[in-house]
Amino acid sequence: MLKARVEIKLKKGVADPEGKNIAKALNLLHFKEVKEVRVSKLVEIFIEEDDKERALKRLEEMCKKLLANPVINDYKIEIEDAHE
Amino acid sequence: MLKARVEIKLKKGVADPEGKNIAKALNLLHFKEVKEVRVSKLVEIFIEEDDKERALKRLEEMCKKLLANPVINDYKIEIEDAHE
Repeated sequence: MLKARVEIKLKKGVADPEGKNIAKALNLLHFKEVKEVRVSKLVEIFIEEDDKERALKRLEEMCKKLLANPVINDYKIEIEDAHE
Repeated sequence: MLKARVEIKLKKGVADPEGKNIAKALNLLHFKEVKEVRVSKLVEIFIEEDDKERALKRLEEMCKKLLANPVINDYKIEIEDAHE
């Protein structure tokens, strides 16, 4: 069993209204040192597979087919052994 | 300038319908090795601050006041130097 951490970020230059709202709210709460906020999604996937290389290939397919939108998202995949 | 990565996860045992839907969709797309999916939020915060210890205290406050819901969320804060 492996566990993959897939970070799905907005590409640079793509507007992030949720991040903007969080930054504004933090400023209003007197966290004036906050300059910018960017929000990403972290998808943890538990897969029945022992070969990390094969897992990585499959995860890249998953990103392309479902998880990430290539127009607006970049993604990063990390694979580790699952402990849970 | 520092950059914080704040991972906001659902606590164990808290239902994650988005993760369940992603797992189901991946299975339907013939990624049968996918057993479980959990979705978290990754909030990157750029702060005008150089002292990492002080930054960490402020970020914990931000989590408690706005970013995380203590009933359902755990959070993890990592701080690094901002390169962007």
